[in-house]
Amino acid sequence: MTQQETYKQHISTQFNAELEGVKNHLLEMGGSVERQLNDAIDSMVVMNIDDAQLVIDRDHSINQMEISIDEECSHILARRQPAASDLRLVLAVTKITTDLERVGDEAAKIARQAIRLSETSPSPSNYVEFRHIGSSVLDMLKKVLDAFARLDVELAVEVIKTDRMVDKEFRSAMRSLVTFMMEDPRAIGAVLNEVWALKGLERIGDHTSNIAEHIIYLVRGLDVRHVELEELISQVKESH
Amino acid sequence: MTQQETYKQHISTQFNAELEGVKNHLLEMGGSVERQLNDAIDSMVVMNIDDAQLVIDRDHSINQMEISIDEECSHILARRQPAASDLRLVLAVTKITTDLERVGDEAAKIARQAIRLSETSPSPSNYVEFRHIGSSVLDMLKKVLDAFARLDVELAVEVIKTDRMVDKEFRSAMRSLVTFMMEDPRAIGAVLNEVWALKGLERIGDHTSNIAEHIIYLVRGLDVRHVELEELISQVKESH
Repeated sequence: MTQQETYKQHISTQFNAELEGVKNHLLEMGGSVERQLNDAIDSMVVMNIDDAQLVIDRDHSINQMEISIDEECSHILARRQPAASDLRLVLAVTKITTDLERVGDEAAKIARQAIRLSETSPSPSNYVEFRHIGSSVLDMLKKVLDAFARLDVELAVEVIKTDRMVDKEFRSAMRSLVTFMMEDPRAIGAVLNEVWALKGLERIGDHTSNIAEHIIYLVRGLDVRHVELEELISQVKESH
Repeated sequence: MTQQETYKQHISTQFNAELEGVKNHLLEMGGSVERQLNDAIDSMVVMNIDDAQLVIDRDHSINQMEISIDEECSHILARRQPAASDLRLVLAVTKITTDLERVGDEAAKIARQAIRLSETSPSPSNYVEFRHIGSSVLDMLKKVLDAFARLDVELAVEVIKTDRMVDKEFRSAMRSLVTFMMEDPRAIGAVLNEVWALKGLERIGDHTSNIAEHIIYLVRGLDVRHVELEELISQVKESH
């Protein structure tokens, strides 16, 4: 090997290490956001105010992760000038980190609703639907992080499919909450707090589905945003 | 001028044209989104179902603009390998286009609520607060697009300040809508449609504020996301 070849290989090893680094940092951020969501849902269901406060306090560190991952990405772009799939990785990471941060944001907002609900009367719904949709959405987030770690397109498509179900369940939960409000107008304030928490879960589903789309772009080079589900599935199949 | 120098200048002229191109496309997208928001708010206030349907139909073209601007950005990154402020421009554009698309999304959702409200009874609120917050948010969107066109950091800061006001006005509007629901439980369904439309406006305010933060990053190289307002103002002053 000539000296120049050794040098080139050295550069490329460093570059790979940087790409691995940013991938790992995104997965760490994902793990933290997953914990935030888990704790936010729990704090709502079992009305644990201390846990809810912890979720709110920890949101700051999620925000810092977003900023630091974005910095890593722009350093890589400036110094390494990545092409093809490396460029797609960096671009996908900078989009995914935005969605993850917003999931964290929504988790903190759910925790705030839990605190508000503890201050007024509890919602008469017993949070049956909240619990159910919460566990679906948490499962989606776990799967989408797995899909990113393993670059698993099938799993990403599954997450997008689940989001359509979550949207349906959200609408049905809304209808039943309206009934609770009509039956007992004094409970309207409390039920509205639950409405906001549910809306937060629905948005988390959307962000998770966005992340799944970014993974498909990363692995297959396909931009499937705003594509209907059946069309998306057939595009992904054809790209194989 | 040597042949090589002529060649280099030629490349850099092309490169500048590409950067100008992507800036202009983002501003065109911004103009379309502004029109969507304007028409969505109008369709709600004057209950014009045809206009609401037009907003929903046009959402597709906003989505296409997002995809095409993102493609432009990744081509520039791959072929031109921009550095320093050029790189910041491309990265800011790819973040701003995401926020603009979501503003378009929320406008389409508001139009859907207008259609739903026309099918049930109108909300007893007369949309006083919706109108007011709607015009604030529309004004924010205009200003933030101006701030991007002129790289005007002061104007971007003003938009972020206005968003804090909009958040306060949203909370006060919610309190008055709860009163309407309690006074007439039969109107709960209609009022909830207005609640969702208002929530859409509040989120548009958030996205507009995000865009303002990206502009500050672009012009000053400062990442002011998740920074408190006073701290942000002082950071922007010091960076001058």
